[in-house]
Amino acid sequence: MPGAGRAAGVRRPEEPPAREDEDLLLAAAYVSDAQYNRNVPFETSPRAIRLYYFYNHWTMQVAIYFFICVDLSLALFEEPALFPLPFLATSIAEVLCLTAFFGRLVHFAKVTPQMVFWKDTKNICIMVTIVLTLIDLIIYGSLEAVNIHSIRWSRALRPVFLINFPESRQIRRTFRSIRNTLPDILYVFLLFMFSVLIFSLMALKLFGVRSLKTVEGLPYFTDILEIAFELYVLVTTANIGGTLCTYITYIIINTYIFMSVFLAVVYNNYRKHLKNEILKLAYLKRRKMIEAFNILKVKVGTEFVVTEAQWKRLAKIVMPHISSPHLELLLRISDEGQKGHVDKMNFLRLADLLNIQVVAINIKRHPLEDWMPRVYQSSASLLVQRMVRHRIFVWVYDVIILVNAIFIALDEKKPFISNAEWLFLSLYIIEILLKLYTYEPRAYFGRKQFWNWFDMLIIIAALGNYNSQQILDIVLILRILRLLRIIVSIQRFRLIVTTLINIGPTILTFGGLVLVVYYVFAIIGMEAFQGKVRFFDPNFTTPEAQVCGNPALTGSAFARDQYCKNNFNDLASSFIVLMELTVVNQWHVLAGGFALVTHQAAKLYFISFHIVVVILIVNIFIVFILEAFFVAYSLEKSEVETAIEKKIQELGVGVQEEEMQDGKLIDNMDAKDSGFSGDDGDNKRKALKGLYFRIASKKYRTVDALLQQMFESEITPEDEGPSLDEILNLSPSDIYPKNPSLGNSA
Amino acid sequence: MPGAGRAAGVRRPEEPPAREDEDLLLAAAYVSDAQYNRNVPFETSPRAIRLYYFYNHWTMQVAIYFFICVDLSLALFEEPALFPLPFLATSIAEVLCLTAFFGRLVHFAKVTPQMVFWKDTKNICIMVTIVLTLIDLIIYGSLEAVNIHSIRWSRALRPVFLINFPESRQIRRTFRSIRNTLPDILYVFLLFMFSVLIFSLMALKLFGVRSLKTVEGLPYFTDILEIAFELYVLVTTANIGGTLCTYITYIIINTYIFMSVFLAVVYNNYRKHLKNEILKLAYLKRRKMIEAFNILKVKVGTEFVVTEAQWKRLAKIVMPHISSPHLELLLRISDEGQKGHVDKMNFLRLADLLNIQVVAINIKRHPLEDWMPRVYQSSASLLVQRMVRHRIFVWVYDVIILVNAIFIALDEKKPFISNAEWLFLSLYIIEILLKLYTYEPRAYFGRKQFWNWFDMLIIIAALGNYNSQQILDIVLILRILRLLRIIVSIQRFRLIVTTLINIGPTILTFGGLVLVVYYVFAIIGMEAFQGKVRFFDPNFTTPEAQVCGNPALTGSAFARDQYCKNNFNDLASSFIVLMELTVVNQWHVLAGGFALVTHQAAKLYFISFHIVVVILIVNIFIVFILEAFFVAYSLEKSEVETAIEKKIQELGVGVQEEEMQDGKLIDNMDAKDSGFSGDDGDNKRKALKGLYFRIASKKYRTVDALLQQMFESEITPEDEGPSLDEILNLSPSDIYPKNPSLGNSA
Repeated sequence: MPGAGRAAGVRRPEEPPAREDEDLLLAAAYVSDAQYNRNVPFETSPRAIRLYYFYNHWTMQVAIYFFICVDLSLALFEEPALFPLPFLATSIAEVLCLTAFFGRLVHFAKVTPQMVFWKDTKNICIMVTIVLTLIDLIIYGSLEAVNIHSIRWSRALRPVFLINFPESRQIRRTFRSIRNTLPDILYVFLLFMFSVLIFSLMALKLFGVRSLKTVEGLPYFTDILEIAFELYVLVTTANIGGTLCTYITYIIINTYIFMSVFLAVVYNNYRKHLKNEILKLAYLKRRKMIEAFNILKVKVGTEFVVTEAQWKRLAKIVMPHISSPHLELLLRISDEGQKGHVDKMNFLRLADLLNIQVVAINIKRHPLEDWMPRVYQSSASLLVQRMVRHRIFVWVYDVIILVNAIFIALDEKKPFISNAEWLFLSLYIIEILLKLYTYEPRAYFGRKQFWNWFDMLIIIAALGNYNSQQILDIVLILRILRLLRIIVSIQRFRLIVTTLINIGPTILTFGGLVLVVYYVFAIIGMEAFQGKVRFFDPNFTTPEAQVCGNPALTGSAFARDQYCKNNFNDLASSFIVLMELTVVNQWHVLAGGFALVTHQAAKLYFISFHIVVVILIVNIFIVFILEAFFVAYSLEKSEVETAIEKKIQELGVGVQEEEMQDGKLIDNMDAKDSGFSGDDGDNKRKALKGLYFRIASKKYRTVDALLQQMFESEITPEDEGPSLDEILNLSPSDIYPKNPSLGNSA
Repeated sequence: MPGAGRAAGVRRPEEPPAREDEDLLLAAAYVSDAQYNRNVPFETSPRAIRLYYFYNHWTMQVAIYFFICVDLSLALFEEPALFPLPFLATSIAEVLCLTAFFGRLVHFAKVTPQMVFWKDTKNICIMVTIVLTLIDLIIYGSLEAVNIHSIRWSRALRPVFLINFPESRQIRRTFRSIRNTLPDILYVFLLFMFSVLIFSLMALKLFGVRSLKTVEGLPYFTDILEIAFELYVLVTTANIGGTLCTYITYIIINTYIFMSVFLAVVYNNYRKHLKNEILKLAYLKRRKMIEAFNILKVKVGTEFVVTEAQWKRLAKIVMPHISSPHLELLLRISDEGQKGHVDKMNFLRLADLLNIQVVAINIKRHPLEDWMPRVYQSSASLLVQRMVRHRIFVWVYDVIILVNAIFIALDEKKPFISNAEWLFLSLYIIEILLKLYTYEPRAYFGRKQFWNWFDMLIIIAALGNYNSQQILDIVLILRILRLLRIIVSIQRFRLIVTTLINIGPTILTFGGLVLVVYYVFAIIGMEAFQGKVRFFDPNFTTPEAQVCGNPALTGSAFARDQYCKNNFNDLASSFIVLMELTVVNQWHVLAGGFALVTHQAAKLYFISFHIVVVILIVNIFIVFILEAFFVAYSLEKSEVETAIEKKIQELGVGVQEEEMQDGKLIDNMDAKDSGFSGDDGDNKRKALKGLYFRIASKKYRTVDALLQQMFESEITPEDEGPSLDEILNLSPSDIYPKNPSLGNSA
């Protein structure tokens, strides 16, 4: 176990400083890992640690993401290209990217122990992909040189880089979740296909003999695989006209029941694995903090502690740009009794403490008060200020927005209505001016004052585009989103809205996942179907344009309904087609069209895409939303507050995020300030004045964060958990039953 | 509390027999209620109890269901009728039904305490509906007499009778579940509409100005409500062609996220209420059994017991047709030590004991063995028998079925293939003959030998229709279902298949629910849209036929795609249209068509139907399937065996359902018989020989039954639970938190 050996003995304060520095660096690396939930095991030699710091530096991460983006977007410039570039240019760019990936990998190899590096499939994957890509490049390049066109198959492997770099943990976790679900899904899928086949046989016998014709005059239901395909389409789109009654059973069994079973299987697995992974993270974090503590601990009296000086140096290494008031604030929490050292329990919290945002609250006077105190403090001015601060002021403007929304919905051709919009605009300008008069402008435009910025930008956009009625309208419609604030103030809505907002960040993870799947399918689709279907200008009415440039499509639904634009002739078109396949209910038309031009082979492509995206990814997405809501429901009544939050509240050095909205905080702080009495505690607080912990509102946390918090609060301060090696090698099923209360928690 | 007063004192054995009989009747009523999970409070006077027995008699129940069916099916004969009957005939039938319902209600009022009767909304509902229907009948009849056509609005109320009679507990429970979900759903729905409206406003401004035209040349997006409707359709069908990219956000937010939120809300409520309702049932059952015990108990030694004689008389009243070996068997379980009385714990189990099916296993010799023992016992004959009993025999036939399935799928025009089917048929006949030779025929065609009956019927059907190739094929395809047996033998598939089978009975409940909703909407639809759209023979090509007989439909998608058959001109057509609305993805075409002929009013009807069916009922259906699977997953590892089952197993008087399949049981029993040794226990068993408890396989239990069993096993024998009144008046939230382990159980 890295670092364990070194930490065995207790270090004395009088050891040489050089050694001390190395220890500090190592401890800081552990703390930093715990802070960012990294589970990378690293070498403990001083050189490796320095390299590790460099490895984790933000510039390196940005660089690697840049190269991944470049690599992925190369498909835009390669044949079939949206913006054609010569093969030489794209291949040089690709080689550059590969070099960068290889460099990153070598860097990682230097940092991590040899054994761990070679056991990690992620690294092997990247290396294999680099080699394969190079081979493909060379073969394709040399064939191209002698004018033979071959397939750039390695392009479908590019998303490997996105998935396998340690930075894209979230996407990888979702993939792992999918992989774990696969065996169970497979069995349901086999049953599903069995059911589809039985129905296909029936359809063949019932309708095949009667030789029905489709609307297009083609024979309907003649071949068992054809029928199985038709029925698969039927399940996923429920799109059939005439012979409906016969299919009711089929649809009930296959659409509703099997699709629900898929959901159940995905949900069951997702839930199990999510908990395991998060529990693992929680243990890992605890373990790394213990490692750091063991390195720095000294014995004072009967207990091991970390001295204040060491602690401060450590914090400064972990967060180089920390301000000294911020450091003082952290120390106040960690060393409550001001004993000059931090005990183990408080030390273990350091990673969480560093994650809590600290805000400087500068309670400044309004500039107008400085410039013309008399006028600003006059009774009329005070009345205006009190009015603006009043709840009714907000309500009045909410009503105005609502009325505005109704006006927008009405026909804007009447002059009365289009003039009314200018009235609304001026009302909004008055609102902002009044608020700026009342609140301190720098506080009003504070970093977290989202809605104020929003209002301001809308007004500017509206004024800037006053000659474009349309943009003005769009901008004003956006303003209606402010009604969300009213909605959130109603208890019943709050839970729903806040949960939806929490889902936000994870939707980005799904975006990454979908991007990977789309990219692979787009590359395959481009290689397979490129040029088979062409889009002609709508004014072009030659017979060729009528059949999308492919005679095989004559008389097909694809050509008749003008789907020619849906082709795989470049990356952008491919993405649009795949999006339509995911979202729109007419994928059978697309599949049918491409099946005609490729002699049925395309059906396999379309069905496998459908299985991957609809059965797996969409279900995981739904499950994710379900889980988020269930966690929200189960937390609705319970109060999950971490130990740190409690302590921060006790010491009175925190502000709730809710309080910071819309200038309320400032009023609040004013009230607190004026109410100060002269005792010692308040004096101390005065000294810290202007700097507070910002406690993130419990409502606005992601499912992962909430679960991790719950699990961490269940690990007692004494529980050291399994060792680092044990945690990393644990299989999911190992941890799960050890914690019986998990079943309840979500 | 009914009966509580009577049970306060302990009854002495020497009390007069008349009184005893009344007590027994009362106790038997409690036991019978517990057995069938009825939660009807009844009067304890002897006359009321006798009436209560009559009330619960199966003839009464069949009669009431008959009248409900008649009442509901009247819509087939009333205008707009499928089979027209004069108004006089249908109204007389309706009055008859109403009389029957009223009679049933009066009967119920005599049985149940006055207070309870008038507090129960079910009864009030029925009475109000009867009165309203009579009023409507009179008004409609008198108006009809003077040739004014009015609306028979009370027909939409008919399903009230189906829902509100105490016999349709399941449907009512589902409705209650829906009602409980409504407030939460409403809030999500409002948010959803808010989102749809915001997008509508945007669409109006973005596309309205550009005055887009649809394919039909009609202006697209001109009016806010029109757009809201279009977007609502878009969410539910994801059916839009051209301007796709703009809608991706919209679709992600509204289709995926909101639909998942609906599911989450429904699931959360369903789960909460399901557990509460079942827990309530479990407590109620326990309470009723305690009441019965308190009535019959006598003091023997230090404990209260029920004497054997009393117990037997009680069992005979509860189950009048019980055979005496069956009664002996029950007694053996209840009075283990043969002490001549049944103690409290064993008495409380009586209701469950009576529910366990008892099977008579008559191990008879094969008739051929009687007629020609030499031949049947010859070594050749024994070889055949051993062969048929062998596992490989089943496998061979499974392979044959598989090959047959492949042959069916192939083109049957080749003579080789169509001749092969005769080969398969003869193989199947040989299989049955061999099995009949080996197994005792009466056992082979036992009541539970589903697959044997299935095989036999298929052969008969095939032979009976040998001149119709098509029916023969269908019949043979059905035989492929036997492959399910192979599938079930694989562990991974078993869980899925058995859970799907368990869902079966509850799907019927959903059938009832859907029937109620469809009926109400069909009646409304018939009153509103009757005759607006007409269907003409396809050969009829007059301009009128082209527009479904309504000029308003000229050029609409509805007429163009020949949806004329989808009309509300009689009950059957209405049901088909509603089914299409539920299942098929083209409801916007239907809604659009009817909107044209009714000046947009129809949209309201179609949207409300969509909300009720898709958002509520389909989600509840999905949730139900999800829950069934989660319960199955959580039970997969744990062994839930009731105390009774354990005891039955210990005494060796039970057979597992699994053993009874396909003649295996008989072999089993033979083996057991031949292994008998001469000790006392076995002698006793010999006395009972031929009669065993059939322990339902755990795998084949519904979610409700499993949950109830789990809850009952958590109620300790000493726990008497809350009193009857308390249980009936408990609100769901009262019970829920009291049982912390419920969260785990499912």
